[in-house]
Amino acid sequence: MNNVIDLLKSHRSIRKFTDQPVTQEQVNLFVEAGQAAATSSFIQACSIVQVNDAEKRSSLAEWAGNQAYVKEAPVFLVFCADMNRHKLACDMHDAEMLSGFTEQFITATVDCALFAQNVAIAAESEGLGIVYIGGIRNKTDLVSDALELPELTYPVFGMCLGYPDQDPEVKPRLPVSVVLKQDSYNADQDAETIAEYDKAVREYYRTRTGGQKDMSWSEQISGMLQKEARPHMLSFLQSRGFLQK
Amino acid sequence: MNNVIDLLKSHRSIRKFTDQPVTQEQVNLFVEAGQAAATSSFIQACSIVQVNDAEKRSSLAEWAGNQAYVKEAPVFLVFCADMNRHKLACDMHDAEMLSGFTEQFITATVDCALFAQNVAIAAESEGLGIVYIGGIRNKTDLVSDALELPELTYPVFGMCLGYPDQDPEVKPRLPVSVVLKQDSYNADQDAETIAEYDKAVREYYRTRTGGQKDMSWSEQISGMLQKEARPHMLSFLQSRGFLQK
Repeated sequence: MNNVIDLLKSHRSIRKFTDQPVTQEQVNLFVEAGQAAATSSFIQACSIVQVNDAEKRSSLAEWAGNQAYVKEAPVFLVFCADMNRHKLACDMHDAEMLSGFTEQFITATVDCALFAQNVAIAAESEGLGIVYIGGIRNKTDLVSDALELPELTYPVFGMCLGYPDQDPEVKPRLPVSVVLKQDSYNADQDAETIAEYDKAVREYYRTRTGGQKDMSWSEQISGMLQKEARPHMLSFLQSRGFLQK
Repeated sequence: MNNVIDLLKSHRSIRKFTDQPVTQEQVNLFVEAGQAAATSSFIQACSIVQVNDAEKRSSLAEWAGNQAYVKEAPVFLVFCADMNRHKLACDMHDAEMLSGFTEQFITATVDCALFAQNVAIAAESEGLGIVYIGGIRNKTDLVSDALELPELTYPVFGMCLGYPDQDPEVKPRLPVSVVLKQDSYNADQDAETIAEYDKAVREYYRTRTGGQKDMSWSEQISGMLQKEARPHMLSFLQSRGFLQK
């Protein structure tokens, strides 16, 4: 196992940062590393809004479900799936863009995620910590207004970056045998394997919270999935020009 | 710039591989590195089908638009967004899962992409090359049948892995100033900057193809977006339990 794989396997979300500043040169370097990720048919459909303005940061922290670190992190980036740039490219050639396809939504969303993961790894390779903020999708309309996002863009997730002021443990993942299947999807052994894994997760939470949190993975998941999941997303995305067909 | 960032910035898709085998231990290690990526609310919604069977590989290569390397690469992985495992977790606790939300589609798709990008980087850090295969979405129904994918899963993309037998140049990316915006999305300068970038892309294609391909980025994009983009995707995904609300 080389040092890059070591780095990848040591990821944990960081939610508390020191005062050590992160320079704009560093941010630009991480973004360049992000751009180097693969992009579907060269579409390069990710744009980032770096939010420095204190009021906007406060609002974003609140909208994300009162996550204080969204306000406090040295750097906060909002990753946007962006097909607006492609409308511009079409306009430059008097071409009519066919938009609204679910396929385009997938490629733009995946482009953003590949890009962001490179940003995360670049930052971590320099000793910074990061946390993804899916919570900005709680209020996609308010986030879009605050950042003046045009049609054919949407905020996929945010990311806090800074130097870590905490050192949480790596969270145990599902056994590889559940996640990696050979030639076809066969789940015959999965319930049994997940039950074993559940014990490891329960133990992780117990020791990490001094016994306060006593929960397995399947319990946590089953609790979460009995609730609606951001039911505004479909109509919001359609209003921005996505997922119309 | 450290060696990790160097590695990220030197990515290019590899479509021709040597005969040097990739061991199952290596694949498992890359998958473990993939699992270590962030996952939305710990859902771990990515499963992989590693396709070894020669007939299935041939079919996949054909369905992906006759991409021979899908058949020829030492390793081929299909990354699947997987909420079926969560149905299982709910069943384990007699819980009723609320599914079909667009939000769940986003988190599962993003989970897959973050996972896959870690797999890509882990492989590249060991001297392998990779290429993402979005082309498997040409025939999502046939791919799903061939790999026996259950409801609440879908094949997001494939990935070829192996030792490179070619050394293509890194493709120039959009200027950072277009991609990284401050505090709000402002595209006032973008058309001008893209026009400059277009020259660099035209030059890249010209020198790389001995003058055969003479095309700018915005030309390529505008040509592509005048066509329909996999119009079967929405109804396919809905038939698998996704994007219903």
